Amino acid sequence: MSFSRESLGSSYLAVRQQSLDICEPLEIEDYLVQPMDDASPPKWHLAHVTWFFETFLLKPFVRGYQVYDDAYEVLFNSYYNGVGEQYPRSKRGLLSRPTLDEVLEYRRHVDEHMLRLIDSDIDQDQQFRIALGLHHEQQHQELLFTDIKYNLGNNPLCPPYRSNGADNNYRQTSQPLNFVEYEGGIFKIGVPTDSISGLNFAFDNESPRHDILVRDFAISDRLITNGEFLEFIEDGGYQRPELWLSDAWSMLKARSDENIPSPLYWFKKDSEWFEYTLDGVERLAMNKPVCHVSGYEAEAFASWKGMRLPTEQEWEVMAGDADVVGNFVDSGALHPEPVSFPDKGVRQVFGDVWEWTQSSYGPYPGFKPFAGALGEYNGKFMANQLVLRGGSCVTPASHIRRTYRNFFYPEDCWQFTGIRLASVD
Amino acid sequence: MSFSRESLGSSYLAVRQQSLDICEPLEIEDYLVQPMDDASPPKWHLAHVTWFFETFLLKPFVRGYQVYDDAYEVLFNSYYNGVGEQYPRSKRGLLSRPTLDEVLEYRRHVDEHMLRLIDSDIDQDQQFRIALGLHHEQQHQELLFTDIKYNLGNNPLCPPYRSNGADNNYRQTSQPLNFVEYEGGIFKIGVPTDSISGLNFAFDNESPRHDILVRDFAISDRLITNGEFLEFIEDGGYQRPELWLSDAWSMLKARSDENIPSPLYWFKKDSEWFEYTLDGVERLAMNKPVCHVSGYEAEAFASWKGMRLPTEQEWEVMAGDADVVGNFVDSGALHPEPVSFPDKGVRQVFGDVWEWTQSSYGPYPGFKPFAGALGEYNGKFMANQLVLRGGSCVTPASHIRRTYRNFFYPEDCWQFTGIRLASVD
Amino acid sequence: MSFSRESLGSSYLAVRQQSLDICEPLEIEDYLVQPMDDASPPKWHLAHVTWFFETFLLKPFVRGYQVYDDAYEVLFNSYYNGVGEQYPRSKRGLLSRPTLDEVLEYRRHVDEHMLRLIDSDIDQDQQFRIALGLHHEQQHQELLFTDIKYNLGNNPLCPPYRSNGADNNYRQTSQPLNFVEYEGGIFKIGVPTDSISGLNFAFDNESPRHDILVRDFAISDRLITNGEFLEFIEDGGYQRPELWLSDAWSMLKARSDENIPSPLYWFKKDSEWFEYTLDGVERLAMNKPVCHVSGYEAEAFASWKGMRLPTEQEWEVMAGDADVVGNFVDSGALHPEPVSFPDKGVRQVFGDVWEWTQSSYGPYPGFKPFAGALGEYNGKFMANQLVLRGGSCVTPASHIRRTYRNFFYPEDCWQFTGIRLASVD
Amino acid sequence: MSFSRESLGSSYLAVRQQSLDICEPLEIEDYLVQPMDDASPPKWHLAHVTWFFETFLLKPFVRGYQVYDDAYEVLFNSYYNGVGEQYPRSKRGLLSRPTLDEVLEYRRHVDEHMLRLIDSDIDQDQQFRIALGLHHEQQHQELLFTDIKYNLGNNPLCPPYRSNGADNNYRQTSQPLNFVEYEGGIFKIGVPTDSISGLNFAFDNESPRHDILVRDFAISDRLITNGEFLEFIEDGGYQRPELWLSDAWSMLKARSDENIPSPLYWFKKDSEWFEYTLDGVERLAMNKPVCHVSGYEAEAFASWKGMRLPTEQEWEVMAGDADVVGNFVDSGALHPEPVSFPDKGVRQVFGDVWEWTQSSYGPYPGFKPFAGALGEYNGKFMANQLVLRGGSCVTPASHIRRTYRNFFYPEDCWQFTGIRLASVD
Repeated sequence: MSFSRESLGSSYLAVRQQSLDICEPLEIEDYLVQPMDDASPPKWHLAHVTWFFETFLLKPFVRGYQVYDDAYEVLFNSYYNGVGEQYPRSKRGLLSRPTLDEVLEYRRHVDEHMLRLIDSDIDQDQQFRIALGLHHEQQHQELLFTDIKYNLGNNPLCPPYRSNGADNNYRQTSQPLNFVEYEGGIFKIGVPTDSISGLNFAFDNESPRHDILVRDFAISDRLITNGEFLEFIEDGGYQRPELWLSDAWSMLKARSDENIPSPLYWFKKDSEWFEYTLDGVERLAMNKPVCHVSGYEAEAFASWKGMRLPTEQEWEVMAGDADVVGNFVDSGALHPEPVSFPDKGVRQVFGDVWEWTQSSYGPYPGFKPFAGALGEYNGKFMANQLVLRGGSCVTPASHIRRTYRNFFYPEDCWQFTGIRLASVD
Repeated sequence: MSFSRESLGSSYLAVRQQSLDICEPLEIEDYLVQPMDDASPPKWHLAHVTWFFETFLLKPFVRGYQVYDDAYEVLFNSYYNGVGEQYPRSKRGLLSRPTLDEVLEYRRHVDEHMLRLIDSDIDQDQQFRIALGLHHEQQHQELLFTDIKYNLGNNPLCPPYRSNGADNNYRQTSQPLNFVEYEGGIFKIGVPTDSISGLNFAFDNESPRHDILVRDFAISDRLITNGEFLEFIEDGGYQRPELWLSDAWSMLKARSDENIPSPLYWFKKDSEWFEYTLDGVERLAMNKPVCHVSGYEAEAFASWKGMRLPTEQEWEVMAGDADVVGNFVDSGALHPEPVSFPDKGVRQVFGDVWEWTQSSYGPYPGFKPFAGALGEYNGKFMANQLVLRGGSCVTPASHIRRTYRNFFYPEDCWQFTGIRLASVD
Repeated sequence: MSFSRESLGSSYLAVRQQSLDICEPLEIEDYLVQPMDDASPPKWHLAHVTWFFETFLLKPFVRGYQVYDDAYEVLFNSYYNGVGEQYPRSKRGLLSRPTLDEVLEYRRHVDEHMLRLIDSDIDQDQQFRIALGLHHEQQHQELLFTDIKYNLGNNPLCPPYRSNGADNNYRQTSQPLNFVEYEGGIFKIGVPTDSISGLNFAFDNESPRHDILVRDFAISDRLITNGEFLEFIEDGGYQRPELWLSDAWSMLKARSDENIPSPLYWFKKDSEWFEYTLDGVERLAMNKPVCHVSGYEAEAFASWKGMRLPTEQEWEVMAGDADVVGNFVDSGALHPEPVSFPDKGVRQVFGDVWEWTQSSYGPYPGFKPFAGALGEYNGKFMANQLVLRGGSCVTPASHIRRTYRNFFYPEDCWQFTGIRLASVD
Repeated sequence: MSFSRESLGSSYLAVRQQSLDICEPLEIEDYLVQPMDDASPPKWHLAHVTWFFETFLLKPFVRGYQVYDDAYEVLFNSYYNGVGEQYPRSKRGLLSRPTLDEVLEYRRHVDEHMLRLIDSDIDQDQQFRIALGLHHEQQHQELLFTDIKYNLGNNPLCPPYRSNGADNNYRQTSQPLNFVEYEGGIFKIGVPTDSISGLNFAFDNESPRHDILVRDFAISDRLITNGEFLEFIEDGGYQRPELWLSDAWSMLKARSDENIPSPLYWFKKDSEWFEYTLDGVERLAMNKPVCHVSGYEAEAFASWKGMRLPTEQEWEVMAGDADVVGNFVDSGALHPEPVSFPDKGVRQVFGDVWEWTQSSYGPYPGFKPFAGALGEYNGKFMANQLVLRGGSCVTPASHIRRTYRNFFYPEDCWQFTGIRLASVD
């Protein structure tokens, strides 16, 4: 998302409102639950993104600004050691106070001061920080969806987030999986460092723009479907150690629950497969992209197919200069959709699901983190994680870029994550 | 509490209403939080005590009764294996659904059917089960206070449960500690088994009434105060292994937090001691009974004094046939109070704090648990726990008896628990 | 064991030699293994009992005695905080140094000085400490057997400790279980405090001798057999929560291994049951006493029979003034034996297996621990454990007394522990 | 190491003998200890490398070969799921049986059959498997050193592995750290797949040989020294979160021990720094390469210097076509040595310490694992680990290559691992 200086105030209001809109269907109780350490309570998300503006804009740049509440500086600091202490992440779900109403009041307070700041004479650095704050809030909007889904989807009552009554033509299978070939060579990926400035936004981890050398490769023209992943299960995929990385297999064997191994939110009942979605429990649709698989599951599936996951370099070459269009949160589906358009070439590149790559998340050559405490935003996570590309059905369309690098641990599966294959040469 | 058959309906309504009254000061968010495995969410308590009436009265005795919600049978079963599966205890705080409103609706539904049942021709067994259900709800009323306190008292904002504006004359010290001597001999303790019937209530673990042989003993005439416990701390009590049981010392050494060891809810700030109470943070009152000590702390304190904890037999001999009066929940203090009345003899026997004894919780000779699944109420916990006696400032006065045996693990400290000493002969 | 002053030197040598004799069949590697935290390596046992003599006799009473090795003071201190720091218990199996040879040299050094001290003019206190040291070493001799068995019995190769070639008439069932009735009344149990002095030995936890009040009771005339315990298993005993204490059932459900639940060292192969013994793997002998059951298993078995475990008071009344004879380590069987003699009355009272009681391990009224650091010997363990009585097939006959109180946690099962029942009245 | 067909038998004998020579200074007890899960007992190493030859050569290729012991197939299988079950890794230190003598007998048995096989008419595949088995044993020779050091160095007695009486000129500081510049471009790294065949050995993870694109870079001309790392410590390096990756900082904060954070085997006593080496405890030598740092420590040190770790591609470009010479195990030092030769250009490229790179361990483009169960050798570990290059002072010189890729988790520090820096451009 790039903003114009003129409409920055209305952009600010729109992004801020969007967070509230996402939470609108929730009961008050839903705002508080932290169903696992990684899935923060919606109330905490709403406060934390507000803390971000207060900490990085209001405190340093508004003369005489009084901190709203000293305790909030600790409670709603996620991981910025450069700012100060943090309340333990695993205990966010224990904070019945401040209440939702008090958090909403905090938002109004900060919004009021932010709008005043935006209307004043702000420099390039301040403009950049506002753009960063808005992108930051958009990231948490995606997390609101994934964390709300994790809460409701693990509640024994399986309450839907919303009731859509969508017709689910679940038996329909997908068209054949084809591979599109790309010729190797030297390409440029990433964003030029000096282009990130003011309201022209990209994250530090996407730069510098640099040359890469890529071999010839072939990549699947669409995402892997539920039906294809079910074949993996039925072929004993979860029971065959030779298909799994060593760390993945150790984790699988240590799982004590008695459920049939499957992607998160799948379950089998009376020999039929079901999937919990934000619209509630549905029959598993065979032609929809498989979703909520971990990087380990993606990798094992690829092995079973005799293939591999693409590298992030290959992915960015594939994305080329195509338009960034797809099934984003803006479509309202809130779930990956079957391939629908009959075009040739790669499809579902953007939206639907984040695509696991085989690439470890690391610095681009010449990488420089943002200055100061904001430098903790991306750089310090460059260990043990994998890069995902393309955005998902709960990503705002205005948030994503071709060069955008998302990252999660290979065992994570509560995000809307899926699989695209590359062929082994 | 013994009930009359005529007023059973109004007794039922009064006890049920009392649970709601206790929760009245809470925010909706407070109803959901489970700050540790042992401290269940208020919403869960409100539902569980309702489930108890539905399970043990409505289902077996009301012809054609339809279970309110099949899922509730699992969600709100605490530990009755004889009834069926249980939702994991440690995850009660993750149940944002059913909402509070839905739980209140469940209460209304069950109350309506219970009142109809009470108005019908019920036999001795049914009467007894209703009495048990009401005592059960009173036990959970005490837990509501302890669990709400644990939640609010561990929230960094330290919100009070209510605002009392009480005057806290914190410097006043207590009168001297005296010991009252009792001659040994053969005594009877407990409740005759055949007297427990219909609305004449006692728990199975209080019977049979039986002879005990007790040696001469001397017991302190009042509870140990905060001031006296502070002397223990200042004498290095928490750093001296010779004062502690081996299991207690292992636990102390394994604690990783950096706070000064002290009773739960105490903290030191700028060289002054404070205590979180249900009225908020207060200066530590030296003449009030020490509260929220574990059995291990009680035992170490006694060792430091060159004394010991009384046995439960000695305690019941001491309680003799005195009236069951004291600082119970009915006084509204919600905190232990200093000794105020100038009588001779033992004081603070009932109310203020549960008194740790050195007695392991076990069966009285000839013990028989209640029949069927209700037999799980007390008997299966007769391992690894200690007996506490006398009730506390959050116990309903109508709930307690001289023969009443409460039980907790020696490491537990979130109940209103305190210390009375016996001398070593 | 009481010693005479004249033969104290030879008693010392005999007890010390016995420890070495027990280890004689071991390979050097066996001396080092710690197969679980509770089961210390034989080498550590050999060093620790030596440290005991050095610490409590040589250091305080031998003028000019130089400590053998400063590091040993920490390495071989078990749990005496009054003496100083301790090497972590769970890491004893990591001490490849000092080597076995070095530990044996340490033993020789201490023995030499101890014999010189014994030959000198020692007072009552010193005599008592020597007697204590020898009883202490006898306790570790029993642990040598249990810990060696735990190591070898959990090794996939199942090596025998020795090869006895014993004929195992495994199908023979036992005679019927009868109950012997005892009339209640006031009895005396325990050892007079002032009789513990010099070489007249008993532990502090056995005193004072005091009156107890016991109701009429009936107790089984022999131990429960493997055959009887097998009926419990085949009746689904391990799958029925109503038979188990709550803490026991939680533990059972948390066990992740896939073996059929059974007493330690039992396993089923091709529909036949086997048992690992110190003579190697044998067919499970139906008429031998069941062994290596935890207190929880003993209690569940009793519940299944509609009975209970005896109290330690009842046990001591039962033991009466019978001679202390039975299947001790001196018989060489190293395993419990079937009831063989046709006498009337209770049998197998001493030896074969330690008998679980329902009594929590606590202080007798008026209990005073030994003075100084030796006071840590027994008193600090008076929490969360149960009393066991009677000695086992690996207890030295000279070690045990009618008043002897052993204690273990209810979940422990690696000792030679078994079951005697009392009837519920 | 490449072997000739003629001398394969004597090469086999030499490598096998080398394993025994490494263990020669050990006491029997030392062969058994597993001081942490990752550090296997020497006895287990000796058996496992033997199992490797039996499993991958004798069983498939020697007609009529009888497995030496069925139990060994499970006990000494490290992680080959394709072969069968494995004894739990964390319990290897509990295997007092088979004894060392029995393991040595197992080695003799397998050697006898292996030599007979080598003398027979073996094909390319069998030759390759023998070469693999010998390289495998060499890898375990390095592990023997690191695991023995971990055992002895964590024993409170700090026994030396050997006594060298080396003169330690510990105060001497190092020459200045210079950076050597390399021009970027397209390079080839790795080993051609088809060159790995028969006795011409390389691991599958080193191939295919492929083009890489490297930017200009500058790399330090020698390894970082103890003195330089000490400056990092004294500058508060371990207390500054901004220097550490997020996962590293979480790990640091979770460490409960009270020692001053430092590289493994360092400790401070009376304000002097010491280091445990295989020759025993020595004063920390300021001019020797820092050793036993984790990848996290290496990365934090680089951040503190305003630099970074090299990529493995840069490292291999740096190594160029230099001779593979350095301080390997063959020098007998068993510890990294100061830079001694006054040449220009990069030094200490091979030997001394494995050099951490910033590169995640992953497949080269077109990677194909070895066929069958041998495919588990390298490929399944391509997650969560970093590549290290160059070999160490305990690596056999004949084992290493310029293209050799070692890999460990970023938190691992018990290997001989150190630091070379690259400059940030």
